Amino acid sequence: MSLPQLLGTELPLIQAPMAGVQGSALAIAVSNAGGLGSLPCAMLAPETLRAELGKIRAQTTQPYNVNFFCHRPPEPDERREAVWRQSLAHYYREYDIDPATIPAGPGRRPFDAATADLLAEFRPPVVSFHFGLPDEALLARVRSWGARVLSSATTVEEARWLEARGVDAVIAQGLEAGGHRGHFLSDDLTSQAGTFALLPQIVRAVRVPVIAAGGIADAAGVRAAMALGVAGVQVGTAYLLCPEATTSAVHRAALQSEAARHTALTNLYTGRPARGIVTRLMREQGPLSHLAPPFPLATSAVAPLRAKAEAAGLGDFTPLWAGQNTSGCRAVPAAGLTRQLMDR
Amino acid sequence: MSLPQLLGTELPLIQAPMAGVQGSALAIAVSNAGGLGSLPCAMLAPETLRAELGKIRAQTTQPYNVNFFCHRPPEPDERREAVWRQSLAHYYREYDIDPATIPAGPGRRPFDAATADLLAEFRPPVVSFHFGLPDEALLARVRSWGARVLSSATTVEEARWLEARGVDAVIAQGLEAGGHRGHFLSDDLTSQAGTFALLPQIVRAVRVPVIAAGGIADAAGVRAAMALGVAGVQVGTAYLLCPEATTSAVHRAALQSEAARHTALTNLYTGRPARGIVTRLMREQGPLSHLAPPFPLATSAVAPLRAKAEAAGLGDFTPLWAGQNTSGCRAVPAAGLTRQLMDR
Repeated sequence: MSLPQLLGTELPLIQAPMAGVQGSALAIAVSNAGGLGSLPCAMLAPETLRAELGKIRAQTTQPYNVNFFCHRPPEPDERREAVWRQSLAHYYREYDIDPATIPAGPGRRPFDAATADLLAEFRPPVVSFHFGLPDEALLARVRSWGARVLSSATTVEEARWLEARGVDAVIAQGLEAGGHRGHFLSDDLTSQAGTFALLPQIVRAVRVPVIAAGGIADAAGVRAAMALGVAGVQVGTAYLLCPEATTSAVHRAALQSEAARHTALTNLYTGRPARGIVTRLMREQGPLSHLAPPFPLATSAVAPLRAKAEAAGLGDFTPLWAGQNTSGCRAVPAAGLTRQLMDR
Repeated sequence: MSLPQLLGTELPLIQAPMAGVQGSALAIAVSNAGGLGSLPCAMLAPETLRAELGKIRAQTTQPYNVNFFCHRPPEPDERREAVWRQSLAHYYREYDIDPATIPAGPGRRPFDAATADLLAEFRPPVVSFHFGLPDEALLARVRSWGARVLSSATTVEEARWLEARGVDAVIAQGLEAGGHRGHFLSDDLTSQAGTFALLPQIVRAVRVPVIAAGGIADAAGVRAAMALGVAGVQVGTAYLLCPEATTSAVHRAALQSEAARHTALTNLYTGRPARGIVTRLMREQGPLSHLAPPFPLATSAVAPLRAKAEAAGLGDFTPLWAGQNTSGCRAVPAAGLTRQLMDR
């Protein structure tokens, strides 16, 4: 079965879900243009998720994807949090922030039964996961309304693991990809391969369709990925400048500057390695710090710095998520970009 | 000008020079098959280099490439060397090696005037460099017999730097590539991009032909790279099992095992980051150590461990250089592999 047949779309193209920089508007635009639009749900409260799903249903009759994280929430550790905040103390002083006023608490919730119940009302045709899969009962619930299930693999082992658990397609996420790495069987970053190396190995290892992600930014990139045997592509970064994205002003400016050529994996913003444009925080702390508490607990300590810096027009503490190839970013409506990506 | 026109070859394919695992035999086989065979010269004494060049001239009339390193030799630092050896002391005890008997000294020399004089006798048609370029006088000497000059770029900045100094083509080395990273303007490894992200950016940044390297292991990979706009490809890892390569038994065994799926950049073997299959030494010390002395000084302390372990059939201390995509390795003659790589 081809990827368009599997997903019910015209094009073998998924718009990558990008939490924090897009909502239903981008998903709707891409779905209406023939691709599979995606709604990133990891950071949405139930009432917001419901509202977003309502908008999608009202504004497109085409298939769409909802995306969730499957992490295991960590136990907060007061001492670790204190050490982490201590390492940021000079920034708090610089921005006149009283660390005692910073609320703790996670910024992202994993997929759970309440969310499955909410989704059941809308029966989204495609549900994709990051960091593995939810447990079998939850997955059965998602399948109960006929949803296609996708998840990300960053290694051959993860692709086989996902196939064995019945996913309909595997998203092979190369090291070039922006945002959070999807690895879930090992957190050894040396196991993460570039798209060129990863695709042929995963294509050979599984029978389900493989979707390429990471570094694909234009029509030539789509053709190159298809030449490596994948059934389709997932593109994120290229959409970040579209008017339908909610990408912040500092983020848009960084994407259009020379700074965009230097990205790194960093755990400073959330606790999990994610790729973004190198910022002051990443430069000064080192992009990967053993002091950062586990995902998603690192988020709260940086949040007030981000807010104050952004208010001053600075992206110094903002997660400027982007892949290694920003050359395809265009400030054009997402429908046009979608068609351009699929130009033969 | 197309790459075959520039190089005088039939095919737009360069066999990557791989010091330590091949000599003239592989270069001759690839050149005779229509590609550009390469002789890695960084580890060759003058008399060996002369003998190898003699063999190439006797056994092919086709163009070939000679490859050199352009590092600046570091000052040996006794204290640093002592700390480095101390970190390996438990291995010396395990293998009953007296560290006092280990000779110091570099294992690789940069390109110099004496080498240029030797080359002038043979007038090799292509000369490629790694870690930048030699100084202008040396480069002029190489150009004096009409040699085409190539060098590796790992970033857009390096590609522009090389173009400004007159290289005939730029080898864009993606992060997937095996062996030594070619970076020379910055040693910040976060600046290193995957092939999928690097190629379109370098293709856009320079006017000279771009040659793709890193993760290209079969005909589909060649087609994918060409789709990204490059003029040709450089393939290394896929040739490692060819009978013409001098790849050791432990290295061949590792390449054909599941272990080959996990490579990492390591500076433990030479002092510079290079990609190889993860070994016991890399696992136990961490692949990147701040204790390793600068390139190429780290080599000598590990050498006796490597020798003793290999004598016992173990690759635990052997640099098992390989790229992230070993799926194209075939134990077939290099001529056949060369033609297969260019299958349409």
